[in-house]
Amino acid sequence: MEPLFEIELETPIQGSRHSGRSLYGQLKQAIQDGRLAAGTQLPPSRQSASLFGLSRNTVADVYERLANEGLAVARRGSGTFVADLPSEPTSTPSPASTYRLNAFWLQDDTTAAMGFWRDDSPTVPHGAAPIDFRPALIDPRLFPFDVYRRVSAKQLRGLEKKPASYKSPQGNQGNFYLREAITNHIALTRAVVCRPDDVVVTAGAQQAFDLLARVLVTSGETVVVVEDPGYPPMRVAFAAAGARIVPVGVDEEGLMVDTLPADVGVICVCPSHQFPLGVTMSKRRRAALVEFARRHGAVIVEDDYDGEFRYGSNPLQSLRAEDRADVVFYVGTFSKCMLPSLRLGFVVVPDWARRTLVAAKNCLDWHCSTPLQTGVSAFMSEGHLAHHVRKMRQLYKARRQLLLDLLKRHFHDLLEPIPSQYGIHVAAYARRGVDLDAAVQALVDTPVKIHTLGRYYLRPASRAGLVFGYGAVEASDIERGLAALHAVLTNEAGSGP
Amino acid sequence: MEPLFEIELETPIQGSRHSGRSLYGQLKQAIQDGRLAAGTQLPPSRQSASLFGLSRNTVADVYERLANEGLAVARRGSGTFVADLPSEPTSTPSPASTYRLNAFWLQDDTTAAMGFWRDDSPTVPHGAAPIDFRPALIDPRLFPFDVYRRVSAKQLRGLEKKPASYKSPQGNQGNFYLREAITNHIALTRAVVCRPDDVVVTAGAQQAFDLLARVLVTSGETVVVVEDPGYPPMRVAFAAAGARIVPVGVDEEGLMVDTLPADVGVICVCPSHQFPLGVTMSKRRRAALVEFARRHGAVIVEDDYDGEFRYGSNPLQSLRAEDRADVVFYVGTFSKCMLPSLRLGFVVVPDWARRTLVAAKNCLDWHCSTPLQTGVSAFMSEGHLAHHVRKMRQLYKARRQLLLDLLKRHFHDLLEPIPSQYGIHVAAYARRGVDLDAAVQALVDTPVKIHTLGRYYLRPASRAGLVFGYGAVEASDIERGLAALHAVLTNEAGSGP
Repeated sequence: MEPLFEIELETPIQGSRHSGRSLYGQLKQAIQDGRLAAGTQLPPSRQSASLFGLSRNTVADVYERLANEGLAVARRGSGTFVADLPSEPTSTPSPASTYRLNAFWLQDDTTAAMGFWRDDSPTVPHGAAPIDFRPALIDPRLFPFDVYRRVSAKQLRGLEKKPASYKSPQGNQGNFYLREAITNHIALTRAVVCRPDDVVVTAGAQQAFDLLARVLVTSGETVVVVEDPGYPPMRVAFAAAGARIVPVGVDEEGLMVDTLPADVGVICVCPSHQFPLGVTMSKRRRAALVEFARRHGAVIVEDDYDGEFRYGSNPLQSLRAEDRADVVFYVGTFSKCMLPSLRLGFVVVPDWARRTLVAAKNCLDWHCSTPLQTGVSAFMSEGHLAHHVRKMRQLYKARRQLLLDLLKRHFHDLLEPIPSQYGIHVAAYARRGVDLDAAVQALVDTPVKIHTLGRYYLRPASRAGLVFGYGAVEASDIERGLAALHAVLTNEAGSGP
Repeated sequence: MEPLFEIELETPIQGSRHSGRSLYGQLKQAIQDGRLAAGTQLPPSRQSASLFGLSRNTVADVYERLANEGLAVARRGSGTFVADLPSEPTSTPSPASTYRLNAFWLQDDTTAAMGFWRDDSPTVPHGAAPIDFRPALIDPRLFPFDVYRRVSAKQLRGLEKKPASYKSPQGNQGNFYLREAITNHIALTRAVVCRPDDVVVTAGAQQAFDLLARVLVTSGETVVVVEDPGYPPMRVAFAAAGARIVPVGVDEEGLMVDTLPADVGVICVCPSHQFPLGVTMSKRRRAALVEFARRHGAVIVEDDYDGEFRYGSNPLQSLRAEDRADVVFYVGTFSKCMLPSLRLGFVVVPDWARRTLVAAKNCLDWHCSTPLQTGVSAFMSEGHLAHHVRKMRQLYKARRQLLLDLLKRHFHDLLEPIPSQYGIHVAAYARRGVDLDAAVQALVDTPVKIHTLGRYYLRPASRAGLVFGYGAVEASDIERGLAALHAVLTNEAGSGP
């Protein structure tokens, strides 16, 4: 075998009279099998000739024959390339042209909402590391991988003695009790009191939304309210299930409960740290929301995506307090407090809906990966999560303070930060006359990545603003990033604070 | 803290005049918080009295007061127990009574189909280990956990240096290329030729079915054909998406293509090793199926759940051969060749449907867990999967031969094994006059777990039979299990082959 081709070809015995045919046969097979991909350049005939001990003419013949059969394309002056595979003649149209796929998934609104974190400016010049202010990102380099590896491996050892069985769709039980670890964690960090039986483990918050949508939504009928601005992928999960999505505005007290439609079935909110504005829902607004839900027979989906990171001194209960357990589905995630790439989250479910939700989870994928559940469970029950959250809370607090200080000092006439008590991002409204879109556009080809608030609105944005995530931005980069932003906002390229 | 209660209670200072109230307050709180679960027996008053340094009368008063408040229930002669939490009076009806959940998930047919592997006879007498002939189980104790731990940990180390990002919904790329490892694996074991770009990684085959259903089915319209008998959880995934399910029979050549309805949209088949009958679809039936699909604009979902384990000498191509790539969605899983608890599988997707499928996967849960993907990817690319499959194929082959030998020798007048070439189970039809239901019923309270074919039919079973899975049954247990089965089939309890 010769490494000239990345595929395995026999090098024929020099002088064999079948060599030309053999090269032809092998290339043809490789192209037809897809081992030589469309667009691959075949080696120059001189090189192939030397390699296979053939005359250049023989190789040229082989290439020409492949081209005649539509398997290769000769491009004048640049060489011979593997062609797109000829489609097989069929007596009937291929399904590609006739099969009706569910059109929802590629609708513009769906792809835009799900493309949420997709990189708009993938080319960072000069190999500079990005300064990534996009919200809801974290820096995985700060995660204690060594500890996680150790506890995961230890737990994995325990699986060996287990009898053959599929596991509970609700989440791990018995010796590897992830659901118990979750109840302890949220009791401690979020004052949510619930039993392990109330918890359904999911593949991140996104699967929790999908699961809730498939249980709570009657297609074409159920009205689902989402915050506007809000978290687009959550909305897509409900829309995919056929919900009628109704955006409702958010003010400094949170979701504007007064404007909820009377026929609402599901109300999706982030009361602790509204995404992306960052406001905490006021106590009276919470009471009104729950009262409204009870009166109209609606339910509430509480997305508590980064509630572990609280900086203020006066915590408000989660919506899913004990006396509201009948109307609230509480969604939590390990994407912010551990790693998004784990894909682990959970729902705390009202009693009356638990069996249905567990049955649906069972059908979606049986259950979440057992080694993953045992690893995270051990990480929590041995105290490593609490330790990591404490450490990160200090770090995030310092970054947040730096960010707010810089905004106050240098952006006073440009931006108005929105007060918030939680999380890993801060939003700011533009002051009158400030053109944020032009500024963000000017940053596209720089290392600075930042989102406008407009991206998170379903309706036209009522106010312009920016979102500053600091989960993945170190202090020194916060300074550099804000300097670059300041420069484009004040049209003083190169200068800044 | 005293370990008498599993919850944390302060032991009051002896003689304190607030002791009674303190015990009352702590118990009340613990019950209301759910830390003392409904049904928990409170310690006998004598014991609590000694522990808390109170008089028995005081403790009796505390218990009585809890009972009066509905927090505990005194049962004459047996003690005091934590009551079900009193439901809170609300001014409006709770959603429990009014909210309309999607009824599909708890329908009898759904729960029966998904309860597939649920243990019907969980009480194995005298602590005997089960002899579990249920199909599609494997014995995880034979899996090389040490190797998997090692390669997983090594791969996990690589994640540390990655920048913050959400990963491709399609599956791992770059240095941890699970999709490339999958294409190599199925090229080798199943002669499926495809590119990494054709693969979408899923949380097991079940998520692949759910994903396909959500992409291929238009609710209330699309006709989906399933094999009858077949794999119930696959049917549920399509039914959940609103498909009109049509069962089509299976004979010794596989799915009876002649009886397919003309308006079919999706045809679900297991051509290599029909589940549960075990037949391999004949060559001409395959050709007819693909021709039918093309002519009617239908697509085929090929479930190849245990194709790695082939014992015959004349392999037939998978349906998803190169020239059928336009109509076939090929579903594979790591549940049989590795471990079901990993929850990892994949779909090989026709070009024209890939973008839609990837978009849907994105919305369902973003992507599969990255550490899981890197672990399995390394396990494959370092050759451990191929090694494990070879080892298990030998082991399964020996078990299969033993099973067939015993059936031939001792069950000749009772059962007629159905020829099969693949997998980890064999099915057998009952001979005329043999009452399998009574026999299986007689085994319910024994260690032997075995399913009748009837359980896998959607319509009334056309023939009675049994399914012998040997993935989780050692050779000695195959002998013991068949002896027990023979005894109940011939009404000779205690004797046997």
